[in-house]
Amino acid sequence: MTSYRALSKEELEQEKESLLKQYEDYKALGLKLDMSRGKPGAAQLDLSMPMMDVLTSKDILSSESGTDLRNYGVLDGIPEAKKLMGDIIGVKPENVIVYGNSSLNIMYDTIARSMTHGVAGNTPWCKLDKVKFLCPTPGYDRHFAITEHFGIEMIKVPMTQDGPDMDMVQKLVESDDSIKGIWCVPKYSNPQGITYSDDTVKRFAALKPAAADFRIFWDNAYAIHHLFNGKNDEILNILDECEKAGNPDMVYIFCSTSKVTFPGSGVAAMASSVKNLDEIRSQMTIQTIGHDKINQLRHVKYFKDINGVMEHMKKQADVIRPKFEAVLQILDEEIAPLDIATWTKPNGGYFVSLDTMKGCAKKVVSMCKEAGVVMTGAGATHPYKNDEDDTNIRIAPTYPSTEELIKACKIFVLCVKIASVEKLLSE
Amino acid sequence: MTSYRALSKEELEQEKESLLKQYEDYKALGLKLDMSRGKPGAAQLDLSMPMMDVLTSKDILSSESGTDLRNYGVLDGIPEAKKLMGDIIGVKPENVIVYGNSSLNIMYDTIARSMTHGVAGNTPWCKLDKVKFLCPTPGYDRHFAITEHFGIEMIKVPMTQDGPDMDMVQKLVESDDSIKGIWCVPKYSNPQGITYSDDTVKRFAALKPAAADFRIFWDNAYAIHHLFNGKNDEILNILDECEKAGNPDMVYIFCSTSKVTFPGSGVAAMASSVKNLDEIRSQMTIQTIGHDKINQLRHVKYFKDINGVMEHMKKQADVIRPKFEAVLQILDEEIAPLDIATWTKPNGGYFVSLDTMKGCAKKVVSMCKEAGVVMTGAGATHPYKNDEDDTNIRIAPTYPSTEELIKACKIFVLCVKIASVEKLLSE
Repeated sequence: MTSYRALSKEELEQEKESLLKQYEDYKALGLKLDMSRGKPGAAQLDLSMPMMDVLTSKDILSSESGTDLRNYGVLDGIPEAKKLMGDIIGVKPENVIVYGNSSLNIMYDTIARSMTHGVAGNTPWCKLDKVKFLCPTPGYDRHFAITEHFGIEMIKVPMTQDGPDMDMVQKLVESDDSIKGIWCVPKYSNPQGITYSDDTVKRFAALKPAAADFRIFWDNAYAIHHLFNGKNDEILNILDECEKAGNPDMVYIFCSTSKVTFPGSGVAAMASSVKNLDEIRSQMTIQTIGHDKINQLRHVKYFKDINGVMEHMKKQADVIRPKFEAVLQILDEEIAPLDIATWTKPNGGYFVSLDTMKGCAKKVVSMCKEAGVVMTGAGATHPYKNDEDDTNIRIAPTYPSTEELIKACKIFVLCVKIASVEKLLSE
Repeated sequence: MTSYRALSKEELEQEKESLLKQYEDYKALGLKLDMSRGKPGAAQLDLSMPMMDVLTSKDILSSESGTDLRNYGVLDGIPEAKKLMGDIIGVKPENVIVYGNSSLNIMYDTIARSMTHGVAGNTPWCKLDKVKFLCPTPGYDRHFAITEHFGIEMIKVPMTQDGPDMDMVQKLVESDDSIKGIWCVPKYSNPQGITYSDDTVKRFAALKPAAADFRIFWDNAYAIHHLFNGKNDEILNILDECEKAGNPDMVYIFCSTSKVTFPGSGVAAMASSVKNLDEIRSQMTIQTIGHDKINQLRHVKYFKDINGVMEHMKKQADVIRPKFEAVLQILDEEIAPLDIATWTKPNGGYFVSLDTMKGCAKKVVSMCKEAGVVMTGAGATHPYKNDEDDTNIRIAPTYPSTEELIKACKIFVLCVKIASVEKLLSE
């Protein structure tokens, strides 16, 4: 194969014709494939089934502190769950609040509370003329949906191989007191799978924000979601770094077992300074009497400790790895020689991020859909779903079976080729 | 025994001396008893233990619609849980959203959403100068805590034997467009155990609120919590009545299994018009991907249907009834003849509400505490914890064992007597 860029117009036309024929053949198959969301596949979920047996009617449903977990109470999590979630995040139990089943819900509630009640005694955001958030882009669509929902202005910050462009972050955060936060997925980022460098983390911790209520929203969703044994990314501990830099209250860390056990029936947690957590507890006590403590206990009984979690994640990696390898192999074989797209090769997380030639992403996604392959919407990785260059597509390999995935990927690369040829022909 | 009101000053002094001696004897026992919160006792929780066995690793964790409940998705509840919760509330599944573990959390979120985003296209409450709520009093302290937390002005409405004073409710709601809601516990109310009469429900449904975004917050926490077989209170269906009266969107109904299965590990739900629920879903989809569907399935598998729930509640009543009977017997024997307090005799729910002579409630609760008996704080049943007459005390008989309860009750009535004697002596 030759780079499309080296082809003549005639050759491109020929190629297009051949591609469209293949495309019609695929369409005729009436496939229904989904590479859109970062959902575990059934084989991953099967790995957690023994968790359904660890608590039975024969067990005493009490915490190590003796509390009857069947009754009301325990606002911020049972001690053993704080320990387990703290170990996953890399912080002490006293820096952890264990919540219900969804870290997204914690993030939403954190923004909602800041809107109505402010942060650390500062003016509630709903009383301010303007509230802004920095959004490293491409990023996680559900983060952007929360800030958009609350009318918070989103400012794009480009991602680099080391994390967000920290020169831009620093300049904006330190000069504009209407900037109240930044969304980060610091490890195996969504969608690129980038892990922030030590320098990036240190620069975050050393920020001197113009706003006293600026907070880093550190969504460590993929903290332990490695793909390859011996090729794990490591990241500095942001809570420690913030403390060292004299900014102990500047970060909120979020985490869950949604992609460890059962999404929707997992355990979510937040980590921060004790001062921040005390403020949050004073609001939580109005909102609820407590989260599902029996499910917290179920997780602790199943994993026992962080070693149990890590063993489990190795089994998950064994299921997911072949899927990533399949996607990357197809991209390498089918697209790389043509010089029409670039993509990431992450060591963990749930996504591969692909950039098409300018102006092709929407076309690719819509052609995929027409052929029965659902991709994440083009633009979804950008604030306001607005990818000006129309290049970024998020590939989520985990949910389909490997067989389905290969089929879906072949259709996807075909669509990338068609859109690229058409783009080149139109230039 | 003679009414204290018939005693001479000398006789009262004698009585006081004798009572204080008994009080010192109790204090010397160093007891630790709790009649403060509406928490199930251990024997009630034991009744739900078989629920821990209905879903195991051998079961297929799918809904009747075929959805794999181990994965992400299903924002508003699995179909069979909607049916079950709908049957408990008395509405159709399409009028139900099933949430996580806490109806209090749903109520909080409902107020929070109204603050930041408004109701049905009206101005968000946080943008208004003044937002008010009506608070039938005595009422539930956690309701009042939510409205106070959001800076919503609370207006007391006296309770009658038929529910809130509807003349006052109607006059206020129909004349003041800053009144956006009213807190109701319509069945076996907290703390009085009063069930709203048909006339009260119909008058609620027929309100013509000045505010387009006025909503009735109908916390049906004790919908199925009867104490006596054959003496169940019945209540009209508020959703039906609102629809009949041309106010289909005026009510939000809340409910949970917290006092059916395990508090903290139950299932909570909201019922309302489809129009209201659509509005709520459009916000929920930003807040979460979904609640714990496996726990929803666990509840459905355990109860099978509403009949299973009602059978279970009969067993619960068998555990709770003797406790209520013990409390009422002690009050009848020890307090009734003295003419120093009045109290309610509910057919269901979790509380007995007692009114002391004016200015005595705080004294009684603090004396109880000193003798090792924790009661709900005096004033807790009033907005801003402000019981101007200082008379109302909420008695929660369910949590202690019957033996402990009897001990606690004897100390409680002793304190009521002492406070009353002192009050009479001071007049």
